[in-house]
Amino acid sequence: MSEVKLLGTQSSFPCARIIWALKLKEVEYEFIEEDLFNKSPLLLKMNPVYKKVPVLIHSDKPVVESLVILEYIDETWKHNPLLPEDPYERAMARFWAKFVDEKCVLSAWEAVKSEGENKKKAIETAQEMFEHLEKQIAGKKYFGGEKIGYLDLVIGWTSLWLNAMEEVGGMKLLVPEKFPSLSEWTQNFIRVPAIQDSLPPLENVVNYFQVGLDYLRSLSANK
Amino acid sequence: MSEVKLLGTQSSFPCARIIWALKLKEVEYEFIEEDLFNKSPLLLKMNPVYKKVPVLIHSDKPVVESLVILEYIDETWKHNPLLPEDPYERAMARFWAKFVDEKCVLSAWEAVKSEGENKKKAIETAQEMFEHLEKQIAGKKYFGGEKIGYLDLVIGWTSLWLNAMEEVGGMKLLVPEKFPSLSEWTQNFIRVPAIQDSLPPLENVVNYFQVGLDYLRSLSANK
Repeated sequence: MSEVKLLGTQSSFPCARIIWALKLKEVEYEFIEEDLFNKSPLLLKMNPVYKKVPVLIHSDKPVVESLVILEYIDETWKHNPLLPEDPYERAMARFWAKFVDEKCVLSAWEAVKSEGENKKKAIETAQEMFEHLEKQIAGKKYFGGEKIGYLDLVIGWTSLWLNAMEEVGGMKLLVPEKFPSLSEWTQNFIRVPAIQDSLPPLENVVNYFQVGLDYLRSLSANK
Repeated sequence: MSEVKLLGTQSSFPCARIIWALKLKEVEYEFIEEDLFNKSPLLLKMNPVYKKVPVLIHSDKPVVESLVILEYIDETWKHNPLLPEDPYERAMARFWAKFVDEKCVLSAWEAVKSEGENKKKAIETAQEMFEHLEKQIAGKKYFGGEKIGYLDLVIGWTSLWLNAMEEVGGMKLLVPEKFPSLSEWTQNFIRVPAIQDSLPPLENVVNYFQVGLDYLRSLSANK
């Protein structure tokens, strides 16, 4: 039995964050693929509150929520630190991580879902959110400075998952002319070996979002 | 000029969390009361992304978002630690803090706002969320164990602000018979001197929520 297990799906970016962190820390783990339409008894037992992936199981104890798991990994295996040392820089990294999950991810998904005139507005809103990230990365190689770190892993979904969202939503959010530094960062990010080796195929992620979108639309059609 | 400033409003519980943390750490600070209907240029400059309180200004640098500020305070002034030492316990505290903000606060506010049959459902949903907290505190004096800590400060709003929400919403969520341990904890919590000395008057908080509710209703009436 492996001491570290990760319940996840290869196509989900919150799961990818954890895979990347474990690879950067060189922690051995067993990956257990979950079928989100038929959740395993282990997932329901380990995350009874949300019943969601990712779940990190370490010595039989579960940790859930990707940002919480990242901090747990950083505090448990202290080599190759993910968060900066300085309390102010740590606070900034945590602030932007929350911003990414609450504003960037949700506004991008809103742009995928919406149609017609609403879609144009949703794209504008999402791009306003990305402008904040563009300002943060301008002049730097990584959000973590010279080395890849916590905030890079949190924003890593823009390197592949955002492309898949754009394909499913029939639109372009991360226009290189508007976001030159962020676009360049995505290229640097996926060239890091620990990241490159563990990116799922784009078509799987496209399929993952398409299934999600079709499912949501079927729910609202049945209302 | 004080080295530590807090932009806030006395009636807001995210601000109270920060006041409590600074008191428990015995950190001197200057409190600057904000008028949320007429925000100061300092607030807009210090929190340009959200334009919200609380903002902690330390040596002229701003930190925002109450959970981020709590961790910043704990890492900057290390005496009287707020978070536990053990990485797993830290992860659990962060998990429940996020749960409180995303599930308990929002579902309680939903119960305040809604009316008729919806209100009954909203109360049930909120109470389902509080059941998780009841299980967490059962058999313990504080969420932090024998000493008050981070998670106690995060859940501290249930000791006074929830009463005000109940009054404004004309309902009862934290029924002592249903939530004996959580109800007992609220009594222990407000007896801690650092907390007791800095609770705003209940009528101010009632007024604060009533103004917020009236404002929201005027917005939806003008739609």
